[in-house]
Amino acid sequence: MRLATLRLDGATAAVRVDNDSTATVIDGYADLSELLNDADWKAVAEKAAGKTVDLADADYAPVVPSPGKIVCVGLNYATHIQEMGRELPEFPTLFSKFKEALTGPYDDVIVPSYAASQLDWEAELAVVIGKQAYQVSEADAEEYIAGYSVINDYTMRDYQYRTLQWDQGKTFEKTSGFGPVLDTDYRLGTKIETRLEGEVMQSSNTSDLVFTPAKLVDYISHIVTLQPGDVIITGTTGGVGHARKPARYIQDGNVCEVTIEGLGSVKNKTVVK
Amino acid sequence: MRLATLRLDGATAAVRVDNDSTATVIDGYADLSELLNDADWKAVAEKAAGKTVDLADADYAPVVPSPGKIVCVGLNYATHIQEMGRELPEFPTLFSKFKEALTGPYDDVIVPSYAASQLDWEAELAVVIGKQAYQVSEADAEEYIAGYSVINDYTMRDYQYRTLQWDQGKTFEKTSGFGPVLDTDYRLGTKIETRLEGEVMQSSNTSDLVFTPAKLVDYISHIVTLQPGDVIITGTTGGVGHARKPARYIQDGNVCEVTIEGLGSVKNKTVVK
Repeated sequence: MRLATLRLDGATAAVRVDNDSTATVIDGYADLSELLNDADWKAVAEKAAGKTVDLADADYAPVVPSPGKIVCVGLNYATHIQEMGRELPEFPTLFSKFKEALTGPYDDVIVPSYAASQLDWEAELAVVIGKQAYQVSEADAEEYIAGYSVINDYTMRDYQYRTLQWDQGKTFEKTSGFGPVLDTDYRLGTKIETRLEGEVMQSSNTSDLVFTPAKLVDYISHIVTLQPGDVIITGTTGGVGHARKPARYIQDGNVCEVTIEGLGSVKNKTVVK
Repeated sequence: MRLATLRLDGATAAVRVDNDSTATVIDGYADLSELLNDADWKAVAEKAAGKTVDLADADYAPVVPSPGKIVCVGLNYATHIQEMGRELPEFPTLFSKFKEALTGPYDDVIVPSYAASQLDWEAELAVVIGKQAYQVSEADAEEYIAGYSVINDYTMRDYQYRTLQWDQGKTFEKTSGFGPVLDTDYRLGTKIETRLEGEVMQSSNTSDLVFTPAKLVDYISHIVTLQPGDVIITGTTGGVGHARKPARYIQDGNVCEVTIEGLGSVKNKTVVK
């Protein structure tokens, strides 16, 4: 099953995506954050029979617009780590993004000029929590995951490296395209790619994750409770602009597309203001 | 004016603290997170005339129990930075704590045994946002601040240093005592102290902050919108256990008290389970 949050009639609505052209409104839920906080969200979504929406005209909001937390993972693609000559990490590197950093999968990303000098992409698989999880084992983790989506962990590299802690470069207002859908049936093992103005910048496979979604739910939930609607973004692979020789950054007017096969794409134009 | 969130009759209530012994319930608001999301929160609190509560029996919840974000600042006390032989930083170091890490100012802190080997204290001044702030200047910042409180930025040092990013050592479930009150009239320039089992471990003055609350609102709000009820915790001073020779950590049964003169104390016993 695929779910989304659409902007509709001046508000937002949680919808079930029935096929490439049609979605059905899940009446009573303003978005997927609200829906996932209903313990019966899956049955509610399956049974929904609200009005139908033509997806050709759809305006997608961030798929889960207000996560209580967004836990970001660094250094998590094995091939990339090894090609850099590093050992695989024993523990996941965790940092944070705030919900205000999210934007719709096709929205323009408006960047203030003072923060526009080193704009970079990071293609990432997002894991959305479906059920409260505390001290959950890797073996049991699947049942706490609602599904998967795509995110561009859009990064201001200059801010990221102003200090030892990365968070400030990772959480600029409405920069991280997130969506278009939450897929409850996705399985690891598909291509993940970034294209800048159509040119491939990153290309890997989600089977290459060192810490799988199940391992991350185990690890994080032994620190803090994961709530329904919380999001874990699982890290990126080689090919980011900052590491290229010469470095390459997103410029005013550039379109950056992050695709995970089986989940779809986020595709955002950057506009510097 | 002083405000608090109390556990009362199986729920929580926002209250106005009228004096050392009495508070008045602010009817209609379950806690200060809810209250601060009312644009008229200050007038509502001033006018509140609900039932009175005897503070001698009061059970304090985290003063603002569900901030949308908690932005933590590192390396922010000038004297301590200079005594370590470092230069004052040009930019604040920012990282995050999740709301699930908060606990009441007098609650026991229950630590799972797998995380109990390097438990440390950090006395910090907490700034609570009272009004949505985006791209606000330092000069205007005061009007976006609702008030101030005390927090122990309780830290698992082993987790903090497992990777380059600190967040995972800063956000263990229900470990950071936060409260007891939100004071709308506090001004910088009072003593901040930590006592472990009564012995002074940290002692400084909030006038020593490199990045003041107003500067932090300016800096952070040029990255991301600060929402009413969001919290900035402003960093700690010298004297943490991990940096002592020999290192000293909080042990099972230890009581750790963080006090800011004019704001009160959080005082939590650690229980390892």
